[in-house]
Amino acid sequence: MTTAEDAKETGRVEAFSDGVFAIAITLLVLELKVPHLDDGGGGRLAAALLREWPSYLAFVSSFASILIMWVNHHRMFTFIRRSDARFLYANGLLLFVVTLVPFPTAVLAEYFERPGSSVAAAAYAGTFVLASIAYNVLWLAAIGRGGKLLRPGVSSEQLEALTRRYRWGLPMYVLATMAAFVSVYLTIAICIGLWIFWVVAAWNA
Amino acid sequence: MTTAEDAKETGRVEAFSDGVFAIAITLLVLELKVPHLDDGGGGRLAAALLREWPSYLAFVSSFASILIMWVNHHRMFTFIRRSDARFLYANGLLLFVVTLVPFPTAVLAEYFERPGSSVAAAAYAGTFVLASIAYNVLWLAAIGRGGKLLRPGVSSEQLEALTRRYRWGLPMYVLATMAAFVSVYLTIAICIGLWIFWVVAAWNA
Amino acid sequence: MTTAEDAKETGRVEAFSDGVFAIAITLLVLELKVPHLDDGGGGRLAAALLREWPSYLAFVSSFASILIMWVNHHRMFTFIRRSDARFLYANGLLLFVVTLVPFPTAVLAEYFERPGSSVAAAAYAGTFVLASIAYNVLWLAAIGRGGKLLRPGVSSEQLEALTRRYRWGLPMYVLATMAAFVSVYLTIAICIGLWIFWVVAAWNA
Amino acid sequence: MTTAEDAKETGRVEAFSDGVFAIAITLLVLELKVPHLDDGGGGRLAAALLREWPSYLAFVSSFASILIMWVNHHRMFTFIRRSDARFLYANGLLLFVVTLVPFPTAVLAEYFERPGSSVAAAAYAGTFVLASIAYNVLWLAAIGRGGKLLRPGVSSEQLEALTRRYRWGLPMYVLATMAAFVSVYLTIAICIGLWIFWVVAAWNA
Repeated sequence: MTTAEDAKETGRVEAFSDGVFAIAITLLVLELKVPHLDDGGGGRLAAALLREWPSYLAFVSSFASILIMWVNHHRMFTFIRRSDARFLYANGLLLFVVTLVPFPTAVLAEYFERPGSSVAAAAYAGTFVLASIAYNVLWLAAIGRGGKLLRPGVSSEQLEALTRRYRWGLPMYVLATMAAFVSVYLTIAICIGLWIFWVVAAWNA
Repeated sequence: MTTAEDAKETGRVEAFSDGVFAIAITLLVLELKVPHLDDGGGGRLAAALLREWPSYLAFVSSFASILIMWVNHHRMFTFIRRSDARFLYANGLLLFVVTLVPFPTAVLAEYFERPGSSVAAAAYAGTFVLASIAYNVLWLAAIGRGGKLLRPGVSSEQLEALTRRYRWGLPMYVLATMAAFVSVYLTIAICIGLWIFWVVAAWNA
Repeated sequence: MTTAEDAKETGRVEAFSDGVFAIAITLLVLELKVPHLDDGGGGRLAAALLREWPSYLAFVSSFASILIMWVNHHRMFTFIRRSDARFLYANGLLLFVVTLVPFPTAVLAEYFERPGSSVAAAAYAGTFVLASIAYNVLWLAAIGRGGKLLRPGVSSEQLEALTRRYRWGLPMYVLATMAAFVSVYLTIAICIGLWIFWVVAAWNA
Repeated sequence: MTTAEDAKETGRVEAFSDGVFAIAITLLVLELKVPHLDDGGGGRLAAALLREWPSYLAFVSSFASILIMWVNHHRMFTFIRRSDARFLYANGLLLFVVTLVPFPTAVLAEYFERPGSSVAAAAYAGTFVLASIAYNVLWLAAIGRGGKLLRPGVSSEQLEALTRRYRWGLPMYVLATMAAFVSVYLTIAICIGLWIFWVVAAWNA
C-alpha cells in the first residue's frame, strides 16, 4: 500500500473514534435535568438549579476525562502509520469504555450526597481503571509486532516519553476507586487532581 | 474524475457511515438506567446495579456486534474506489439496520428474564439476520457492474477471502433466531460465539 | 487559495453536514419505545411490538427521507469547489430542517391512528416542504454569484439535470401536506412514492 | 513535520470539533416534546403543538447560535496550520460550552412564560457569555506563542478583521444576561438581533 492509502486507512479509524468520543462527550448533557417546579418563581428556580450541583460536578469531571482521553488518543495516532485487525479491536475496547462513561456519571450524580455514594464513586473511578487498562492494551497493540504499525522515524525516546507521562493513570485510578469507601470527595479530588496534572503537564510541554 | 476526486468521494460515504456507526454504538449507553432507590445505602445500590446485568450483557453484545460490522465495513471500503447511486442506497440499507440495533437491544434487556424473552431474543437475532442480508446486498453492489467500483489491482482471491470469512454470518444468525424458542441463552451464546470467532480470526490473520 | 486548500475547506462543511445527517438519522430510533408489560408472555410481547407499527412506518419513512436528502447533498457537493458565508448559512438552513425531522416523525407515530392524525400528517409532510425550500435556497447559493463556488468543468447540462430531477419535490410535498386532510394514508403514500421514484431513478442512472 | 502531516493533524481537531458541534446542534430536537392528549382531535392537537411555541423559539435560537459558533470556528481554523496541547485544551473549553447549550435551552423552554423566567433567561444568555470568553481564550491560544500555529501568509489585517467582527459578542451577551431581570423578551431580542447582525454581516462580506 502507498503512503497516501495508509494515511486514508488510519484516517478512517480516527474518524470513527472521533465520532465516538464526540458523541459520548456530548451525551453527558442529557444527564442534566430541568427541575420541574409547580410554581417556579425566580428564587425557587435558582435554588433548584443550584441544588443540582453534583450533576454539574459530574458533568465537568466526565467532560474533562473524555477530553483528555481524546487528546491522548490523538497524540498516540500521530505515531501510527497503519492499522491491523488487532489494533482495530484494541481501539474498539477503548471506545467501549468511552461510551460507558455517561452511565457511571449519571449514577454518581444521582447518589452523590445520598446513601450509596461510595458504591457510585467506586463505579465511577473504576470506569477509569478500565479506561487505563484499555489504553495500555491499545498502546501494546500499536508498538507490538516489531513496530510495523508505527510511522517511520518515530524514536524510542518519543515512545517512552508518552508511556512515562501516562504510567501514573492506572495506579492513581485504582487508588481513587479504593478511596471511595473512605470519602466520595477524596475519589473526586484524586480524579480531578490527575486531570489538572495532565493538562498542566501538556500545557507546559 | 481523477483519483484524488474518487478518494474524496468515497471518503464522504465513509464519513457519513462512520458517523452512523459511531452514534448507534454510543446511543446504546442510553439504555442503561440509573436505579432509583428511595433509600440507597451502599449494599442496596450495589445490588440494584448488579440486578441490571441483562442490560450490561445486551450492551456488551450489541457494542461488539456494531464494532464488528464497522470493522467489516472498513475492510470492504479498502477495496472500493468510487461509488454510484446503487452502492449509496445499498449502503443506506445497511446503515438502516445499524441504527435499528439499539431498539431490539433495549427490548432484550427489558425482557431477558421475564415471560416474552423468546420473542425478544428472536427479534434481537433477527436484526442481525437483516444485517447479514444488507451486507450481502452491499457486497453485490460493490463487486457488480463489471467491478467498476473496485480499486484497480484488487485480485479475485482477495474478494473471495472476504466473501468466505463472512459467509457463515447469515445461516448462524438464522439459527440463533430459531434457537430463541428453545432458550434465550442459546441465542446469546450463538451470537457471542460468532463474534469471538470473527475477532479471533481477524486477530490471527 | 490553492486547490488542496479548497478541497479541505469544503471538506469541513461536508464533515459537519455529514455529522448532522448521521445524528438526525440515528436519533430516529430513540422514538421506538420498548413496550412495558406487567406480565409479558411470548404472544403478548409479540402483539405489543406489532401494535407499534405506526412507529416503525414513521421510522422507515423518515430514515428513507433523510438518506435521500444526504445522497442529494453529497451529489450537489461533487459540483462545489469552495464555500462562502452565504453558502454556509444556506447549508445551515437545510441542516436545521434535517435536525427537525425526528420531531414530526414522533408526532406522526403517536397520532397515526388517533384523532388528530390529519394535523400530525400535515406537520410531517410540511417539514419536507420546508426541506425542499431549503434545498432550493442552497442550490441558488451554490450556483449564484457567477458560479464562482462551482468546480471548473461543470457543464450547465449537468446542473440542469440535477435541477430537473428534484423539481417535483416541492409541489409533491405541498400536495402531500394538503392530502393529510383527506387521508393520512394518502400523505404517506405520496411521500413514500416520491422516495421510491427517486431511488429507482438514481439506481438506473 | 511536513505540510501534509500538519493538515492531517489540525484536520483531526476539526473532525472532533465538528462532531461535537453537529451532535449538540442535533440533540436540541430532543427537547421538543410530543404533546400527550387523551383524546386528540385535529383542533386540539394543533392547539397543543402551537402552545409549545417557547420550545420552538428556544430551538431556533439555540440552533442559530451553535451554527454561528461553528461558522466562526471554521473561519478561525482556515488561519491555523497546526495545533499544540494548549490549543487543544482551549478548543476543549469552547466545546464544553457548546455541549452545555441544550441544557439552558431546555430550562428556558420550560420556564419561558412562567415564574422563574428571568433566572432561566439569565442562565441562557449567561451560557453565551461563557462561549464568548472561551472563544477569546481559543483565539489567544491560536495567535499566541509568536504565531507558530498560524498558517504562513496570514496577514495581521486578516487577524484583526476577525477579532473586530466578534468583539461585540461578549459585552452584548453580558447585556442580554442583565436584561433578563427586566424582560425575558429583551434577552431573546438581544441574542437574536446579534445573530441576525452576524449572519447579515457575513452574507454581505
